[in-house]
Amino acid sequence: MSFHLFTKACRQSQARNRTAFSSLVSRSFSQRSEPRPSFGIAFDIDGVILLGNSPVGGSPGALRRLYDADGRLKIPFVFLTNGGGFPEATRASELSQLLGLDVLPSQVLQGHSPFKQLVNRFENKLIVAVGKGEPAAVMSEYGFKNVLSMDEYASCFENIDPLATYKKWTTKLATTHECASRNDVLSERVRAAFIVSDPVDWSRDIQVLCDILKSGGLPGRNIGQQPHLYFANDDLEYQTKFPSERLGMGAFRIALESIFNRISPHSLEYTCFGKPHPSVFKNAENVLQQFVPCVDLNDFNNKNAQYFQTLYMIGDNPAVDIRGAQQTGHPWFSILTRTGVFKGKENHDKFPADLVVDTVEEAVDFILTRESAS
Amino acid sequence: MSFHLFTKACRQSQARNRTAFSSLVSRSFSQRSEPRPSFGIAFDIDGVILLGNSPVGGSPGALRRLYDADGRLKIPFVFLTNGGGFPEATRASELSQLLGLDVLPSQVLQGHSPFKQLVNRFENKLIVAVGKGEPAAVMSEYGFKNVLSMDEYASCFENIDPLATYKKWTTKLATTHECASRNDVLSERVRAAFIVSDPVDWSRDIQVLCDILKSGGLPGRNIGQQPHLYFANDDLEYQTKFPSERLGMGAFRIALESIFNRISPHSLEYTCFGKPHPSVFKNAENVLQQFVPCVDLNDFNNKNAQYFQTLYMIGDNPAVDIRGAQQTGHPWFSILTRTGVFKGKENHDKFPADLVVDTVEEAVDFILTRESAS
Repeated sequence: MSFHLFTKACRQSQARNRTAFSSLVSRSFSQRSEPRPSFGIAFDIDGVILLGNSPVGGSPGALRRLYDADGRLKIPFVFLTNGGGFPEATRASELSQLLGLDVLPSQVLQGHSPFKQLVNRFENKLIVAVGKGEPAAVMSEYGFKNVLSMDEYASCFENIDPLATYKKWTTKLATTHECASRNDVLSERVRAAFIVSDPVDWSRDIQVLCDILKSGGLPGRNIGQQPHLYFANDDLEYQTKFPSERLGMGAFRIALESIFNRISPHSLEYTCFGKPHPSVFKNAENVLQQFVPCVDLNDFNNKNAQYFQTLYMIGDNPAVDIRGAQQTGHPWFSILTRTGVFKGKENHDKFPADLVVDTVEEAVDFILTRESAS
Repeated sequence: MSFHLFTKACRQSQARNRTAFSSLVSRSFSQRSEPRPSFGIAFDIDGVILLGNSPVGGSPGALRRLYDADGRLKIPFVFLTNGGGFPEATRASELSQLLGLDVLPSQVLQGHSPFKQLVNRFENKLIVAVGKGEPAAVMSEYGFKNVLSMDEYASCFENIDPLATYKKWTTKLATTHECASRNDVLSERVRAAFIVSDPVDWSRDIQVLCDILKSGGLPGRNIGQQPHLYFANDDLEYQTKFPSERLGMGAFRIALESIFNRISPHSLEYTCFGKPHPSVFKNAENVLQQFVPCVDLNDFNNKNAQYFQTLYMIGDNPAVDIRGAQQTGHPWFSILTRTGVFKGKENHDKFPADLVVDTVEEAVDFILTRESAS
């Protein structure tokens, strides 16, 4: 199956005058007697490994092939997702359970992981963390010391959400979100808002973000310039169990930006992290390097290699996974699965992958065959 | 007070070369010996009569002046609001309680009231009603026979809302929204979506509306052209108890339209009702006529009048109330209060009113003095 797909992808690639793939292929298959190149794999999660909370495309079996018989990591791999909402350790534990593996926290690179780099800038300043899961816990773990979740922040302002009385949240939730230091919050300027994961309560979050951003950091006032605004990703859509794609953080960004630009004299300013930005792929390469010493290199004969010859990005979203890997260039090789956003028979028109397969199982099979490491 | 404001407004009006107001004024005050003209009043609710659920600007006292000592209606008046979510009878009962008056259902003209005109077109076809309150009850009362609320509709499609697990709705609500005839809904095409009142759960409503509208009426399929989409109003912002304006249905429309136009090859098509459309004001005039026979006309001497000489629109929103009255023209006279969206010292720049006052109490005082009916 993988060879069939490989041949097809090769033909498509040639047809598009894209030479990178075919040169890689000839090197891989003609130089079997030479030392094999080191390689690593980055797996997207939603639409590749999981659909909702269910494994998809034979992912547990495919991933098990990257460990040796004793359960030690044999092939360096990371999960490179734009999703998030929970600290990396929590997500690693959840993935371990769902996939029957021992995933390390350092193997989980989420959309919000780059927010760590902003700790020095906002360490003690008031920031608001938005999104499903535990966005404030994520930011606290990164080192931010003055962070409130949007739930906590909004609860400090009476009548800020005109639809609150129509939202019959459970008592438990309402109690949790009581604002502990209301007076401080009502007088302190918010310096930045971080969209950590997909926002849940869009009407409140768009309203309060507009209040924060338009006022200069204090709802109901007019005290200065727009505070900083960061998004963990800009994914317009993503795949779940539902037949058609669901709206993601990029859709929320479009909604917020369109409304803000109608009610404010200044256009919204913001920064989006996550794939397809090359920085995300470069960071993944650095992280993957950390796993090389753990790999049993007896099979490879290249113990001193300080870089990867090939890094495989396996993703379901052409505009995010494939585009990102290709923009980053060497040593990235992109593999597109059909278990998520992409469902086409041929390659994607706008962002064609180096290889198109049905499932992650086929992708791993292709890689291990190609690298002669299976 | 009212004369001071009147004089100020008159100066402003003249300064803007707007002659309608000054000619009306001279007629009113110079012709006191002639038969007095018939008149009626349309009150906006939010920001004029109420802020949230609290009366504002002396509204109960002002409205009581429109009844005689026996509690009979003396001056024809209606509430002309873009808000809604409940049947007119329910809203009349609520207003009666909040204001200490006996408001009739026919005196309540809501944003969604014109939806009645579409019954013939969609009477037995599947339609979805969106928004806070009881949107499906509103549509059923208008005569639509195959209507589901968005809560009911969305609950028929498993996994349609990827954020549902993060929305900890009360059990009561979850039970209420169980879909009774799931199989019918899963195979029947939605012919129209009506945004009856401000949507509460924006992430789900935008998602499911995109599903309905993009698919041609059946989420997850691709079966035809975009179903019809109607909004009860297009108010960008409105005033509540919070110091700055809150986002309204117009903001929801912007969010939906911006996202839809990114994920669909066709631009979103829709129709907005509500103020400032002249049809709303013309309909209010017809409704106000119905109250003329109820008025004690002994004071007026114009029993046979079939039309109003002056109709006063008292509103807080220049772009909606004032603009609408002025676009409609004779016999509308616009009065802008400062208890809601508008808070300026002078008149509004873009949509100047015929008169600017602080409160609805001052507006009624001005009208009754001017009409010599106080």
